[in-house]
Amino acid sequence: MARVMNFNAGPAALPLSALERAQSELLDLAGTGMSVMEHSHRGKAYEAVHNEAIGLVKELLAVPDDYDILLLQGGASQQFAVVPMNLLPAGKSADYILTGAWSQKAYKEAKTIGTVRVAASTEKDKKFGRVPAQSELELDPNAAYVHLTSNNTIFGTQFHSFPDTGKVPLVADMSSDIAWRPIDVSKFGLIYAGAQKNLGPSGIVVVIVKKELVAAGRQDIPVIFQYRTHAENNSLYNTPPTFSVYVLRNVLDEVKKAGGLVAQEKRNQEKAKAIYDAIDARPDFYASPVEKGSRSTMNVVFTLKTPELEAEFLAEAKKLKMEGLKGHRSVGGMRASIYNAVPLEWCQALADFMRKFKA
Amino acid sequence: MARVMNFNAGPAALPLSALERAQSELLDLAGTGMSVMEHSHRGKAYEAVHNEAIGLVKELLAVPDDYDILLLQGGASQQFAVVPMNLLPAGKSADYILTGAWSQKAYKEAKTIGTVRVAASTEKDKKFGRVPAQSELELDPNAAYVHLTSNNTIFGTQFHSFPDTGKVPLVADMSSDIAWRPIDVSKFGLIYAGAQKNLGPSGIVVVIVKKELVAAGRQDIPVIFQYRTHAENNSLYNTPPTFSVYVLRNVLDEVKKAGGLVAQEKRNQEKAKAIYDAIDARPDFYASPVEKGSRSTMNVVFTLKTPELEAEFLAEAKKLKMEGLKGHRSVGGMRASIYNAVPLEWCQALADFMRKFKA
Repeated sequence: MARVMNFNAGPAALPLSALERAQSELLDLAGTGMSVMEHSHRGKAYEAVHNEAIGLVKELLAVPDDYDILLLQGGASQQFAVVPMNLLPAGKSADYILTGAWSQKAYKEAKTIGTVRVAASTEKDKKFGRVPAQSELELDPNAAYVHLTSNNTIFGTQFHSFPDTGKVPLVADMSSDIAWRPIDVSKFGLIYAGAQKNLGPSGIVVVIVKKELVAAGRQDIPVIFQYRTHAENNSLYNTPPTFSVYVLRNVLDEVKKAGGLVAQEKRNQEKAKAIYDAIDARPDFYASPVEKGSRSTMNVVFTLKTPELEAEFLAEAKKLKMEGLKGHRSVGGMRASIYNAVPLEWCQALADFMRKFKA
Repeated sequence: MARVMNFNAGPAALPLSALERAQSELLDLAGTGMSVMEHSHRGKAYEAVHNEAIGLVKELLAVPDDYDILLLQGGASQQFAVVPMNLLPAGKSADYILTGAWSQKAYKEAKTIGTVRVAASTEKDKKFGRVPAQSELELDPNAAYVHLTSNNTIFGTQFHSFPDTGKVPLVADMSSDIAWRPIDVSKFGLIYAGAQKNLGPSGIVVVIVKKELVAAGRQDIPVIFQYRTHAENNSLYNTPPTFSVYVLRNVLDEVKKAGGLVAQEKRNQEKAKAIYDAIDARPDFYASPVEKGSRSTMNVVFTLKTPELEAEFLAEAKKLKMEGLKGHRSVGGMRASIYNAVPLEWCQALADFMRKFKA
């Protein structure tokens, strides 16, 4: 079967060239006579891949030298616990900005570790249909950190500028929009991101953390969960998920070749505009539950008038080889996830279809 | 380059047919038009792979119905912490049997969680050159569990029968020999195994745990680390490492087609015998630091008279396309890791070379 237009919310579309590279050398990595999956993580062949992957994260995101880049396992859901295990000591409290299901999960998990506060929530007034303004944040100046989710896959909202948290470190779960554009990493204490949207396959989470936070991290937790353990061992303390690191390397190499994050942002803005324009062109047919200033460039959420129309829309889209457009089971409607690897052509094809459907 | 004979200690050789299957459908899983890496973990195509993988673990290892089979992330090193987090409540103590570096690591990590005891150690008298007999174990009848490492990759030892721990649950790290032969799972409270030796690629750890231990597990730890979370969600609470699960499925499918674990044991015994016979045939040239009754069928460790001879041995082996024969950096010497996917022919080729080298 020909490849389909994949609008999955994650795991999601990967660059075809990154997959083809993986396919071509699956039995023989760089003339070594074995698959990358069969290489020792202590050997030169894998080490080169590992260091290239970390180097590409550093280069593409312009990560300053006073940050560690860690490649870990367990996904963002594990970081919901590991962040407070490291950064939230007894006697301190952490602030959480709630903008959707994932930030709520992070908040609940942090509660199992220590004291947490809600600094803002957009649940009640807009059903998470926007992110809060700086003026709405009730920040604790003594907090250990402030946590937010930069992009909300389920509700289709995104922070387009980040709050000023003063001297309190800002911790961001960027699982669903890391590397969608250039950012100023120095404004963050810690960034974490499950790879399976913009960076690669599932099974790997990238953590970018200021070295001073690593050094100050708690030592009364298991060694495997201490950031310092992985920072001191170049993320080779235990066996890393070698194939996932390898594909992440392939993906980031493609992003670099395609002009890095400046070019990536331009493509992403065009992609999102194509679909939002199609929504806005037929206000009596499509509706967006998201305030315009909070619209996500990664997950475009919209609804049709009735469940029957939505079912018909999905069925017609499927005939056009468009997959993954059904909204999250908790909110319904439609969702087009258009992460970095989704090409403009797919977004244009979807927008075209949206203009013609029942018109 | 032609594929080499891979004697790596882990990540290690995988069945060629399992890799070829992955290669052939890397861009298109089962006619779905996308890679398994691009599929949603909530979709039917991935779910079928996931459930087949779990089903193959259950079938091949004859796991009884009162056990849960979990596919988790973080490797065995993370289980060193997660096992006591779940099973070692305040006021109780756990017993550890120390037979090498991995069991020592498990013991040290458990110390960060609660009270632990050493029930036996073979470090001093034989430098971990054997596993202890039942009569040497000083077991605490009130222990929360007894922990052991079934096979020791570095020292080349293996439990060929398991201790009787009475009513105290036996917990085994079987990372390096799970599925090497049939076992009676009902004798264990919990088995865990990083996949990257006998089961598949790195990035996934299989946990087989008695349901009553899951139910009795601690609830004062983060949700993500509770076994019940993953048991209740069929290991789909958060995004699993989908490609690793997929390759694990491919590998176990090959093991099944080749006659399951009874046939696997027969092959493994022949493989190990070929190399141990070559060691024993030249007692003035090769030495094994392991007591005969504790010899591992997975990692055959041996030494030559001088470091110069060992270097020459490795160089000659490399010319014959044999890779990964260098012993662990902490002990030196040679090590042939001959996990399930290593064919008899490679072991015979190595044994042949050992008979001829400088003879």
